[in-house]
Amino acid sequence: MDKNAIPKATLGRLPMYLEFLTKLPAEQTPYISATTIAKKLCLGDVQVRKDLNRVSGAGRPKVGYVTADLIYSIEQCLGNKQPTNAVIVGAGRLGKALLGFDDFEHYGVNIVAAFDNNEEVIQQSGDKKILPVEQLHPFCKEHDVRIGIITVDETSAQEICEKMIAGGIRAIWNFAPCRLVVPGGVIVKQEVLAASLAHLNNQLFNM
Amino acid sequence: MDKNAIPKATLGRLPMYLEFLTKLPAEQTPYISATTIAKKLCLGDVQVRKDLNRVSGAGRPKVGYVTADLIYSIEQCLGNKQPTNAVIVGAGRLGKALLGFDDFEHYGVNIVAAFDNNEEVIQQSGDKKILPVEQLHPFCKEHDVRIGIITVDETSAQEICEKMIAGGIRAIWNFAPCRLVVPGGVIVKQEVLAASLAHLNNQLFNM
Repeated sequence: MDKNAIPKATLGRLPMYLEFLTKLPAEQTPYISATTIAKKLCLGDVQVRKDLNRVSGAGRPKVGYVTADLIYSIEQCLGNKQPTNAVIVGAGRLGKALLGFDDFEHYGVNIVAAFDNNEEVIQQSGDKKILPVEQLHPFCKEHDVRIGIITVDETSAQEICEKMIAGGIRAIWNFAPCRLVVPGGVIVKQEVLAASLAHLNNQLFNM
Repeated sequence: MDKNAIPKATLGRLPMYLEFLTKLPAEQTPYISATTIAKKLCLGDVQVRKDLNRVSGAGRPKVGYVTADLIYSIEQCLGNKQPTNAVIVGAGRLGKALLGFDDFEHYGVNIVAAFDNNEEVIQQSGDKKILPVEQLHPFCKEHDVRIGIITVDETSAQEICEKMIAGGIRAIWNFAPCRLVVPGGVIVKQEVLAASLAHLNNQLFNM
């Protein structure tokens, strides 16, 4: 099936399904139905059915899914087995917060390092390195980094974006409040955190 | 018009329109068209037309919008004139990063304080206070706080959620990876940052 068709909301729930499924005693639960998963996770039956259908096609009537196959399909979708390497440029508060998230690994992405120009935040050792920006290019080449996360301010975001692309990065998650200009074949996801808050505020007005 | 109908993506672009419009010399531009705005901001004509239509109805043919009216409509949508007070509970890296964002004000939300149990992060003075969690309830009552942002971990998220609701909060932006149980009349927006990254990774697979 076309993985492009998997919506963000479904992807957001996959790790929850995966965690539940992998904790099941394998011998006692060779099959599992969407209904059972929905009940155990307190989710809507229709929602779970749709999610699983997108990932693994329809289950067998009255039986459900082969548990092992469903686990495999979800892992394939999330890319867990071969996580994609990512880097962050901008080790301010937000950059450091993202660098500290363990959660991303469950979604098939491995943040391997952050980069910054501020010497005070550079740390060359430890699990999560923060390196000088001039090392970005060779680092990306060496570690086959495909995703770049931009948490610098808008004045340097375009420059960082170009450095990332030169280093082989093909997908950019941009938190800077500006539109990036990229060549064909590079994906940009513009993150506007404030828009979520504005949406919530808007709903509040209209209650 | 029904403000509920305004999608998040549109809300995300409104501050950009507002900034552009308020910088125009008012006397020389009593009217403005969606096409002009689209050109100046390098956006798609259809997108801008749809956005403005949602916010302010259709412009007049060949003339466009009365600039002052359009500014007023956008401000109304964003709630800029009467910003909603919000608090953050959990002043870790993410909480502090959100507390430091100036951007939220442009979206009609004013983050008035953060709360934490860790004495080392408490700061009772300054522009952005970080207060002990036991002060959450009286603070919310006193400052008419309507939005709560949860950046604690999943083990205490539900407890914080209940304290927020007791304090009068009616909309919750939850970054903790867990589903909150709330009474009717309270809105929860679950933020799964990793889902954006998973979505980007998924697109990368399928290029």
